[in-house]
Amino acid sequence: MIVLGIDPGMAETGFGVVRSAGSRFRALSHGVISTPPGDPAEQRLAEIQREVAALIGAHEPDALAIEDLYVGRNPRTVLLVGQARGAVMAACGQAGVPVAAYAPAEIKTAVCGFGRAEKSQVAQMVSAILGLAQPPHTTHAADALAVAICHSQRGRRNPPTELAG
Amino acid sequence: MIVLGIDPGMAETGFGVVRSAGSRFRALSHGVISTPPGDPAEQRLAEIQREVAALIGAHEPDALAIEDLYVGRNPRTVLLVGQARGAVMAACGQAGVPVAAYAPAEIKTAVCGFGRAEKSQVAQMVSAILGLAQPPHTTHAADALAVAICHSQRGRRNPPTELAG
Repeated sequence: MIVLGIDPGMAETGFGVVRSAGSRFRALSHGVISTPPGDPAEQRLAEIQREVAALIGAHEPDALAIEDLYVGRNPRTVLLVGQARGAVMAACGQAGVPVAAYAPAEIKTAVCGFGRAEKSQVAQMVSAILGLAQPPHTTHAADALAVAICHSQRGRRNPPTELAG
Repeated sequence: MIVLGIDPGMAETGFGVVRSAGSRFRALSHGVISTPPGDPAEQRLAEIQREVAALIGAHEPDALAIEDLYVGRNPRTVLLVGQARGAVMAACGQAGVPVAAYAPAEIKTAVCGFGRAEKSQVAQMVSAILGLAQPPHTTHAADALAVAICHSQRGRRNPPTELAG
């Protein structure tokens, strides 16, 4: 199974493509889609969508996995992440790729074995599980690989609950 | 000038196309894009984006106008509207159509002359300004026409502030 994990954001959208067979996982590609802060929002969202569509075209994933947002974030963050999510999810809908979403604690449990792991522990475990020569350069890429691993383990459809926790 | 007003929402996205010349306004088209509640979110967002892209293709608007979200809404609403906004705005970015956003009070002032007008007053004034035979069937379509009228009056770029008021 091939899963495209995405950590959506206006300035930086992390991505990670994970291929799994049984309990073996391999990272096919990971990194960050960056958009210039000075560009109009609609151009940045179109850019994010184009890059995600290109990743889907290149890797033909069975699913896209994202983190569920949780209540308690400030509304501006929720709006900006929501907009980036919308652009990403619309690309999936157009390509016929199902979207699965997981609560942060669920992702940390899948990768680290407990739900309150630190960001740095997630990055270390992601590297170990995927056998990366070095940890991902950014937490966005590490988080994207983590949610891709999480969905690869579950291997079932888990539609976005929109707001978990 | 031709302005496409959009009131984005997951279940119902209102749209209104307004052509203006001086102080004369005419509605070229208005209505609602509905998506089936049972469909996966990514398919509904792709559907919204396709319909908005089709409206852009059909009417070649100079700008798309939307309402700015305001702090105080519940986070789930902000996320869902944010996702729909993201799909709509990405369509604009792809088509090279600039997006302008206005605070609710600014739109009501433009249409009704005061910022605390009721929904029904907005719908009535929209009908009067555009010379509609009858008011729009839904508040989503009325709100979309209202923000299109607002931007037609201003006629300048007003990038989304993301969270106004």
